[in-house]
Amino acid sequence: MSQPFWNTSLSSVTQNKILIRGYRVQDLMEHCRFGDVVYLTFRGELPTGLEGRMIEMILASSTDHAFLAPSIDATRFAASGGIPLQASIAAGVITLGDHHGGAIEQCAQLLQDSTPQGLSGQDIVRSFKTQKKRIPGVGHPLHTNDPRVTKLLEKAKEWNLAGRHLALAESIATEARLPLNIDGVISGIISDIGISWRYGRAFFVISRVVGLAAHAVEETTRERPFRSLDLTDMGYDGPAERDIPETFSRERGA
Amino acid sequence: MSQPFWNTSLSSVTQNKILIRGYRVQDLMEHCRFGDVVYLTFRGELPTGLEGRMIEMILASSTDHAFLAPSIDATRFAASGGIPLQASIAAGVITLGDHHGGAIEQCAQLLQDSTPQGLSGQDIVRSFKTQKKRIPGVGHPLHTNDPRVTKLLEKAKEWNLAGRHLALAESIATEARLPLNIDGVISGIISDIGISWRYGRAFFVISRVVGLAAHAVEETTRERPFRSLDLTDMGYDGPAERDIPETFSRERGA
Amino acid sequence: MSQPFWNTSLSSVTQNKILIRGYRVQDLMEHCRFGDVVYLTFRGELPTGLEGRMIEMILASSTDHAFLAPSIDATRFAASGGIPLQASIAAGVITLGDHHGGAIEQCAQLLQDSTPQGLSGQDIVRSFKTQKKRIPGVGHPLHTNDPRVTKLLEKAKEWNLAGRHLALAESIATEARLPLNIDGVISGIISDIGISWRYGRAFFVISRVVGLAAHAVEETTRERPFRSLDLTDMGYDGPAERDIPETFSRERGA
Amino acid sequence: MSQPFWNTSLSSVTQNKILIRGYRVQDLMEHCRFGDVVYLTFRGELPTGLEGRMIEMILASSTDHAFLAPSIDATRFAASGGIPLQASIAAGVITLGDHHGGAIEQCAQLLQDSTPQGLSGQDIVRSFKTQKKRIPGVGHPLHTNDPRVTKLLEKAKEWNLAGRHLALAESIATEARLPLNIDGVISGIISDIGISWRYGRAFFVISRVVGLAAHAVEETTRERPFRSLDLTDMGYDGPAERDIPETFSRERGA
Repeated sequence: MSQPFWNTSLSSVTQNKILIRGYRVQDLMEHCRFGDVVYLTFRGELPTGLEGRMIEMILASSTDHAFLAPSIDATRFAASGGIPLQASIAAGVITLGDHHGGAIEQCAQLLQDSTPQGLSGQDIVRSFKTQKKRIPGVGHPLHTNDPRVTKLLEKAKEWNLAGRHLALAESIATEARLPLNIDGVISGIISDIGISWRYGRAFFVISRVVGLAAHAVEETTRERPFRSLDLTDMGYDGPAERDIPETFSRERGA
Repeated sequence: MSQPFWNTSLSSVTQNKILIRGYRVQDLMEHCRFGDVVYLTFRGELPTGLEGRMIEMILASSTDHAFLAPSIDATRFAASGGIPLQASIAAGVITLGDHHGGAIEQCAQLLQDSTPQGLSGQDIVRSFKTQKKRIPGVGHPLHTNDPRVTKLLEKAKEWNLAGRHLALAESIATEARLPLNIDGVISGIISDIGISWRYGRAFFVISRVVGLAAHAVEETTRERPFRSLDLTDMGYDGPAERDIPETFSRERGA
Repeated sequence: MSQPFWNTSLSSVTQNKILIRGYRVQDLMEHCRFGDVVYLTFRGELPTGLEGRMIEMILASSTDHAFLAPSIDATRFAASGGIPLQASIAAGVITLGDHHGGAIEQCAQLLQDSTPQGLSGQDIVRSFKTQKKRIPGVGHPLHTNDPRVTKLLEKAKEWNLAGRHLALAESIATEARLPLNIDGVISGIISDIGISWRYGRAFFVISRVVGLAAHAVEETTRERPFRSLDLTDMGYDGPAERDIPETFSRERGA
Repeated sequence: MSQPFWNTSLSSVTQNKILIRGYRVQDLMEHCRFGDVVYLTFRGELPTGLEGRMIEMILASSTDHAFLAPSIDATRFAASGGIPLQASIAAGVITLGDHHGGAIEQCAQLLQDSTPQGLSGQDIVRSFKTQKKRIPGVGHPLHTNDPRVTKLLEKAKEWNLAGRHLALAESIATEARLPLNIDGVISGIISDIGISWRYGRAFFVISRVVGLAAHAVEETTRERPFRSLDLTDMGYDGPAERDIPETFSRERGA
């Protein structure tokens, strides 16, 4: 091969030297907050404004949602099986799919694809309704006025980080007559600070692993091993008890 | 390096030829049942008796245990997040730790370490009691007379596959005055057919992925996305709602 | 709720009784081979012909593909991190996505959707070419004449399990002038024996966990912990080493 | 049950209100940096000094280590299989076991258990040498003078966060004549700021998911699907190609 099998533009490691996007790791540790490092890693350059602080606000918003989140529940059950902490966390991370935080990817892609085409919220809502598809980033099963969304909107504007992607997200919500949800507001903001939709669900992952870790530790320190549901909470609607037909083995001649 | 970075004794692949432990895969497909292939993979040689059939019986025993199994529950929650089938299965597989099927490893290791030393069930139970440790392979939260255990014991003996490891497992159960459980009987049998304890929990994994797949498909086809607990099923015993002290940011001078 | 939170048609567990699709687990253990249990679990009924044997042949085909398979490689690296066996296996299982065994899902769905509409291989190939999309189930980076495919085709026909789905898969391959691959032949067969495409990638998962387990054990018993690439095998094409601008912290006023 | 099946002290969610350890999430978003939220989540109370800033420095230290880290490699292979971002990340997270970041748990436990007993570095090194066990937190395969360790030590002392746990870690390194490694210094610091060893490997997980996300995106955007090793990089030392004995099926009478 003309190129090494393993190639990256992200980091470089040699003896006693670690570079992240070209910067020495010890310099980043000293001069950057965590949000700056996330921004640098995903964007390739250091922030010039309050993008890092904004990212930390996003990360602070979604660490935990109690047992209402399938990711937390999956990690709880996993931890009860008697496994290492990182494995319990991984079970929850896997869960962060299209219906659970993963919508940040779909919503950010929608915003980033629609904006250059000049599509309006009305265009988008109409198109989704025609296709009978669910619009990502709007509506919530519980929260009608999600305090996380309000705070993120407020600060994105105050810090001059809100642009046309977030405006489009808000317009979609208005047209759909549904509240902008946490996925939607994060999608708008990361798009406005120039981060590709491909990283979208990473924000939810980085944030949620904090809560997953805490729930895994709580499960193993406060609960008995092997979390098991009560028989009375379970229903069964399959076939009634039955015998294997006597002809079963004979008939097939395997 | 004198040796390639990647080296294996398990399989060899070249164009149009796949060898498993030296055998052409198409020959194994034709002449072996699945249990034979598992035995070959873990032992390195084909079975000479009914070991393959016995392994299939083990695999048939543990595919599913309804919602009583944390692995099934973890996969259910994961699947509800909107993720691919193999990812939902993986969430359940991760869960199969020390308290959930994983005890096959600990129990098989105990049997394989104790047998050459001539330790009796009495010796082992006494030692665990002294150390106040839980004995792997005995006791079950629900089943007092587990039909899977009974069937495996019966057939292992009928097929001349039961030896001193299974006998030791039974003796431990007798001494502990607890029923031999599914982990314990599998541990005894795989030890008697010469499989290292290191593969122990693989038997549970291979078996359970069948049930995990079915539960993941059922979740995505019969249930609404994002399985969420009822607020009324959840308790909270942390601190009551509180304000961040006004001094918080100032005090620290970050 | 009128319905319990947890509901299933797959299995029922009460004290000392486990039913799988209505059958007592001990009866399945005694009278069924592993392939029969897989068929029952996914289809809801026991096989009437050699479907179970066919499934075992599918499972025997794909347990291992040496280091050519990303799933094996992922498990190798994971195992080297010092984690339990089931967690190492899970890392490989996660990997079985759209480009790696997961195509069974896409291909089986294509076959199951196209057959009722009477679409031919020609129709399908033309449509994929127009959309410039990759056709699932055909072509292989290494094997021009995959012995697994040949054997599965031969036996599906010999055992009267080959029907119009497999015929369509073969026709697609002919039209595309590419060999039918292992994903394609499995897709055709499971469709012909009446299993929903939604279970498609489960066949690859059940099979591959055998090989993943063996590779994980080999990694931990024959290799040193923490498998790490040689520095000489790695390339870096990101920014050269650079300083954080002195203005960085001051400018932003966070 | 007298207690609900699901119970937590970590968070509380009701309509339009999310509490983390009692604090309203919007207040935390506004007044806390990410490190403060991590501290609060794991400790239960807000930091009184620069603990949050210290945690962010820890998180900034370990996001990436290029292909030298098995976690990065596992995620690279997983991502090449064609799976969602969070699943690729999870494959890397699983990998963070006893030999890879997970040693923070062992080392922090060692420090937290030894300190109340007044054990010295000499006592501990002697005890590990007698038991021929590897001491967690010291030694590195590549770095003889790890810049991450130097920076963390410097700032922990400057910010008055270094106490007897970190001192003990340094003393162990001196006695063992090995450099304190990144796991060791993190273990000392988190112990000194009062975080239980049970959360130890969470710090590595939270940090590394940033790098795993970036590597997964780079893999899917810059590389071809299905990363596969060259045949020439692979060795096979198992049995040579062989036939299944003709007697195989007959002998066993299955």
